[in-house]
Amino acid sequence: MLDYALLSALAAVVRAGSFERAAQQLHVTPSAVSQRVKLLEERMGAVLVVRGSPCTATPAGARLCQHAEQVALLESELPASLPGLAQEGPRPVLRIAVNADSLATWFVAAMADMPDCLFDLVLDDQDHSADWLRRGEVLAAVTAGGGAVPGCDSVTLGALPYVATASPSFMRRHFPDGVTAEALTQAPCLTFNAKDRLQAQWLRRVGMEEAVPTHWLPSSQAFIDAALAGVGWGMNPLPLAAAHLATGRLVEVLPDHGLNVPLFWQRSRMPSATLSRLTKAVQRAAACVLVP
Amino acid sequence: MLDYALLSALAAVVRAGSFERAAQQLHVTPSAVSQRVKLLEERMGAVLVVRGSPCTATPAGARLCQHAEQVALLESELPASLPGLAQEGPRPVLRIAVNADSLATWFVAAMADMPDCLFDLVLDDQDHSADWLRRGEVLAAVTAGGGAVPGCDSVTLGALPYVATASPSFMRRHFPDGVTAEALTQAPCLTFNAKDRLQAQWLRRVGMEEAVPTHWLPSSQAFIDAALAGVGWGMNPLPLAAAHLATGRLVEVLPDHGLNVPLFWQRSRMPSATLSRLTKAVQRAAACVLVP
Repeated sequence: MLDYALLSALAAVVRAGSFERAAQQLHVTPSAVSQRVKLLEERMGAVLVVRGSPCTATPAGARLCQHAEQVALLESELPASLPGLAQEGPRPVLRIAVNADSLATWFVAAMADMPDCLFDLVLDDQDHSADWLRRGEVLAAVTAGGGAVPGCDSVTLGALPYVATASPSFMRRHFPDGVTAEALTQAPCLTFNAKDRLQAQWLRRVGMEEAVPTHWLPSSQAFIDAALAGVGWGMNPLPLAAAHLATGRLVEVLPDHGLNVPLFWQRSRMPSATLSRLTKAVQRAAACVLVP
Repeated sequence: MLDYALLSALAAVVRAGSFERAAQQLHVTPSAVSQRVKLLEERMGAVLVVRGSPCTATPAGARLCQHAEQVALLESELPASLPGLAQEGPRPVLRIAVNADSLATWFVAAMADMPDCLFDLVLDDQDHSADWLRRGEVLAAVTAGGGAVPGCDSVTLGALPYVATASPSFMRRHFPDGVTAEALTQAPCLTFNAKDRLQAQWLRRVGMEEAVPTHWLPSSQAFIDAALAGVGWGMNPLPLAAAHLATGRLVEVLPDHGLNVPLFWQRSRMPSATLSRLTKAVQRAAACVLVP
């Protein structure tokens, strides 16, 4: 079997970002941590940590960290079936890929339902979060596609409703004669990042094929803030926009042209009771916010 | 001089994330875009785009895109000094590195002050945003250090005040006998990512050297949401926490133990009137929220 003392050192360096902080967490000297990681690298025949500020894992190092976390998760479940065993290990860490808008709207409620776990969240677009699962870097993911990743189970969560929103002053400035194709080619929109296709999808749906000017703004809350401040129009999750739509601080660019994004929960089939409990917590939290 | 038609094709591919979408933006066929990028790669003797989903720039490609944006910015300022010139070019794009908490608290107001520009925001920790500037990948950055990056001017913006906050129920559950060192080693904290040293700084300041269990949660708003939901305690920017502190939904973990993070604006010395205007807008927006 692998030498898990070495693996723990590697995981601590990658998580803490430096050999010094990893040493502090493991209650050993930085040189001991460095020796352990070097030894593991020699045994594996591969560089596992990119020494930098912060230190990061190479692909091989990331795969080993993920394995160490899976083992720690399974270990944390031993006491439940072996009541005699002293339960003193650290809390299990659940590394999960979530899209930013799920985190901004419903995912925190699922976290609050699992007070005995620690979460390590990776943010990525819902169309790309399954890649993290496919690469074995996370235990589960909120994804846009239901096509199951090999070795994973997929459950339907419901759909996150999006509305194209802007401030009333933005609408007056850019669409004085209505939301015409011509006006849309001039009005700046908001785009989360290169993976965000929501604005383009909405534009296609309203019959617009041309490219529009855009800001690039990788934050769910900043999307709402920028729409409120009249910086641009963007696809905002209805749960975040609803209160502002009700008070009139935001308006729909075109009424009744919402977009529903179906979301799925895909989890590793690893036989973990914790992961099964998390799946239930995720389904409950999603059901409070998503639409069927 | 460089062939800027080829450079525009490269910049469009990197920004749009695919050759198809770049072609749409440039009103040419995807194969024309592909040929232009290939030609540029041959001339430069280097791969410039990693063909993927999305397509991303190699370091050399990123440097060329940044150059193309700087040229576009300078070009956009020509009409001001040449009133006869038809002003029909696209809006200049300002690529700026910002820390997430600045974006969540005051930066959007600066964007709203520059309606004639498009922003391309890169999020990174305030201790690392200067690296983007150093690598020439952004025009300006909100940074924690005032040490000027070569070729850049630095101005003081003020300090963002942080408070260690948690929900009342979290305090009751984890600190029934007060915030002792022992209790802190068990109570989960929130950490943005491996670059986030704020919680560790705060712990050191209250005399705590040991590592504490943590969630990893890379979103300013999720930090507040998770504190409110009792998931963990974390260093939250006072402007985001103030309303919740006032209503008692959040409390300070230890009263009167705030932390101020001084912020600076570093901008390229490139002679751009737009960048000078943005600097003023940033100073105004920061002054409304940061403390001296």
